[in-house]
Amino acid sequence: MKLEGKSLIGQQVVAGNSSAISAVNPATGEQLDPAYAGGNATLVANAAQLAWDAFDTYRETSLEDRAVFLETVASEIEAIGDDLIQRAVAETGLPQARIEGERGRTCGQLRLFAKVVRAGEWLDVRIDPAMPDRQPMPRADLRQRHIALGPVAVFGASNFPLAFSVAGGDTTSALAAGCPVIVKAHSAHPGTSELVGCAVQKAVAQCGLPEGVFSVLFGSGREVGAALVADHRIKAVGFTGSRSGGTALMKVAQQRKEPIPVYAEMSSINPVFLLPAALQARGKAIAEGFVGSLNMGAGQFCTNPGLVIGVKGTALDAFIEAAGQAVKGSAAQTMLTPGIHGAYQDGVGALSGEAREIARGQVGNGPCACQTALFATQASDFLKNEALQAEVFGAASLVIECDDIDQVKAVAEALEGQLTATLQMDAGDLEAARTLLPLLERKAGRVLANGWPTGVEVCDAMVHGGPFPATSDSRTTSVGSAAIYRFLRPVCYQNLQQGLLPEVLKDGNPLGVSRLVDGKRE
Amino acid sequence: MKLEGKSLIGQQVVAGNSSAISAVNPATGEQLDPAYAGGNATLVANAAQLAWDAFDTYRETSLEDRAVFLETVASEIEAIGDDLIQRAVAETGLPQARIEGERGRTCGQLRLFAKVVRAGEWLDVRIDPAMPDRQPMPRADLRQRHIALGPVAVFGASNFPLAFSVAGGDTTSALAAGCPVIVKAHSAHPGTSELVGCAVQKAVAQCGLPEGVFSVLFGSGREVGAALVADHRIKAVGFTGSRSGGTALMKVAQQRKEPIPVYAEMSSINPVFLLPAALQARGKAIAEGFVGSLNMGAGQFCTNPGLVIGVKGTALDAFIEAAGQAVKGSAAQTMLTPGIHGAYQDGVGALSGEAREIARGQVGNGPCACQTALFATQASDFLKNEALQAEVFGAASLVIECDDIDQVKAVAEALEGQLTATLQMDAGDLEAARTLLPLLERKAGRVLANGWPTGVEVCDAMVHGGPFPATSDSRTTSVGSAAIYRFLRPVCYQNLQQGLLPEVLKDGNPLGVSRLVDGKRE
Repeated sequence: MKLEGKSLIGQQVVAGNSSAISAVNPATGEQLDPAYAGGNATLVANAAQLAWDAFDTYRETSLEDRAVFLETVASEIEAIGDDLIQRAVAETGLPQARIEGERGRTCGQLRLFAKVVRAGEWLDVRIDPAMPDRQPMPRADLRQRHIALGPVAVFGASNFPLAFSVAGGDTTSALAAGCPVIVKAHSAHPGTSELVGCAVQKAVAQCGLPEGVFSVLFGSGREVGAALVADHRIKAVGFTGSRSGGTALMKVAQQRKEPIPVYAEMSSINPVFLLPAALQARGKAIAEGFVGSLNMGAGQFCTNPGLVIGVKGTALDAFIEAAGQAVKGSAAQTMLTPGIHGAYQDGVGALSGEAREIARGQVGNGPCACQTALFATQASDFLKNEALQAEVFGAASLVIECDDIDQVKAVAEALEGQLTATLQMDAGDLEAARTLLPLLERKAGRVLANGWPTGVEVCDAMVHGGPFPATSDSRTTSVGSAAIYRFLRPVCYQNLQQGLLPEVLKDGNPLGVSRLVDGKRE
Repeated sequence: MKLEGKSLIGQQVVAGNSSAISAVNPATGEQLDPAYAGGNATLVANAAQLAWDAFDTYRETSLEDRAVFLETVASEIEAIGDDLIQRAVAETGLPQARIEGERGRTCGQLRLFAKVVRAGEWLDVRIDPAMPDRQPMPRADLRQRHIALGPVAVFGASNFPLAFSVAGGDTTSALAAGCPVIVKAHSAHPGTSELVGCAVQKAVAQCGLPEGVFSVLFGSGREVGAALVADHRIKAVGFTGSRSGGTALMKVAQQRKEPIPVYAEMSSINPVFLLPAALQARGKAIAEGFVGSLNMGAGQFCTNPGLVIGVKGTALDAFIEAAGQAVKGSAAQTMLTPGIHGAYQDGVGALSGEAREIARGQVGNGPCACQTALFATQASDFLKNEALQAEVFGAASLVIECDDIDQVKAVAEALEGQLTATLQMDAGDLEAARTLLPLLERKAGRVLANGWPTGVEVCDAMVHGGPFPATSDSRTTSVGSAAIYRFLRPVCYQNLQQGLLPEVLKDGNPLGVSRLVDGKRE
């Protein structure tokens, strides 16, 4: 499949005219064709206008039509076949099996949201029938549903070139909600973005939807990205990336004449708490599980375990020893981009200055080969030094040695908001777990016992979110079916005649969705 | 009941030490005792610390205990008896019947939220059971519930001294969600605030809750209010008031190290669309209904109809004539405060310079007596002049004369976000209504037919919200049971043993709430 190196604006393929970027194969340093010339303000405005023009039609597509559209996107992505896998591997340095798995996850996600759309629970229908005889005042007929917010800007993430990029979680949940989407493609994988973008473009045409339902723009975050977020036709933003990138977009969104919500998933170091009994009984096994999770995807997961907290003693020493050994044996892996690799090296360098180095992994070849890194420090030092909480994106982690369980709690309380918090615990740790839990649920979107935070299930109960700076909006999740709620707002219809009401609010429940009628669930 | 003129910090009564404010009877200009010395940074910090200390306990109270607490607040407010009514009348100039009605609404609201708490739908429980044998990867046990955000700062509104003040909609929904509340009392009705604050304080003690669940502070918005929003222990803000006040709080909240959500209900002019057939058939009756709505509560409702839009012609002329007559006959009413009265006069003065005066109401006595005002202007002028969209808080409204239905649409499209949009329509207007509806639901939180926007039912289906500047967060409502969702965030528990899980997530559904289990509603 030939790549054009151009933006996709609705059904058009449009050349950019700003400076061009090319993908780099991080395993070899080789530059990959074609070059992608960046978009400009005109391109952004054109895409935004098309999205706006499509909005009123698209948000009122039937549940079935919208579900079929999402399923068609999945089929079209699968239809690209091996070209997609090869290009994504070349652009990211991720192993083929991982990319194949991620394609499965992406298409599974689209099909899950098709189911969610059909079920219609997200419409949150509430009906309070008129009570004309009520005293002292009659009640009007009041009916509520949720409608889509408007066109959404989605920023592709570097670390999930399929599952959190052009047709990833943000795009899928926004489309499911009835919002047109304009993607700002991540510069690290433009070819992958073009391929997936074309698949969505085809699905839009096949399903007879207005072309503005979907566009993909290439260009820099500072120009194209910021212009997109500032555009008055954009009504919400989905972003996965760095804290500085996310907070910059938050600022642009807040400074608009009409401020809009930004869903930025940013920074998390995902603390793991080694409770005493578990540490004593199975410290070595925990150490191996930990390093496995740490190394997954070269540590380039939002949920990478970057912090391990335990009470000092021989058991913690043994854990550190075993984890150190596992780190030493860790093969070098290719990181996603030269920039990410450089930032990882800087982050590890900064940690070296502040904490005790326990072990480094194997040195690799290739321009972006990373060396796993494990550090340790005293809790008292950690509590004094905010810099030790900075996320090092990649396979680096820090063990915090605490005097006692009270200091473990103090460390937990000092943490910023997190995506996850993990307890390694055995039966003897119940009391400690009970003390920590209220604190951890205040700090994190997901609390795990005896597992590892990497690996985020796409399902109804998932929360991939958490207090700032894990995300910009702790009330939401960016993974799982509840992600759809980010792109909706309620509207109440008072005394509208049946013929004017949206289908889902009509008497007799013609769409058969779950509704709260006069306070009772039907 | 003797008023102390002091802040309520938990179970304490604490004198302020900043400059004092006294309420003024707007009907007479008389200053009302006692003086309320303003709080300072220390008072704010003390209240915030108490709230923080109470948070983990309060948010885990049982659904029944929390519901009983809300019901106890209602009983304690009723137990104040006539003292409350008399003081509120003296502080606001509102008629006694209105204040009595508002007390009923306030207590009804507390009891509705008690029901909502007991039903537990707001916990949004989702359970995806483990699938240990799933290929290629097993699924962990994943369970989601919602927890309270943390202590909430609530700003009392001037225009609803009971229903949107100390124990009003924001406080009630935050307490229902499990959030401690610190109220910044509105300076216009400090005595009413103290009385209601004492009632809540008593309910906290009676129910054996930690004292920090509730505090009331007196003082200025710029000092006490801003300090409260900036305090790191405050996790959300509820506000009803002016656009400048709301946007100032939004700014403070966004500049915190950890930004927090602000739910500000600000500015809305609530357009009413007079569709041709309805205007032709019953223009005079509509004019009378309109002026009745305009004058309600001296026009001091967020949903006051400040804009009327129709197509030029004899029917619109007749409507304007009839509305003008009704305005001329409108008795003067006392506005809430000298400040609000002054702003109303300024707003009307500004409109006089920009639009054609149709009629003024009767001139009244008393320092805050307001004169109803009706203006008209051409759509072409309205479209050129953003100043004509500024909310004039009070009984002033502007009729927009359009050339045709297309220009009606253009006017609607040019509007900022609104709380409500109203259609006056008859059978012959169906087509026009169908064209306008998609636009109106994009602009407003509530769309009405053949009613008036004033009068906001407290029920499940209500949306008192809307795009900016109607509110700061169009995804929410500040009236009705769905207001509880503003103060919650989801947490996912992965592989936690039964003994550690929150009650509501345990196997067997011990609390009997609605749960989504493996994609099915149980």
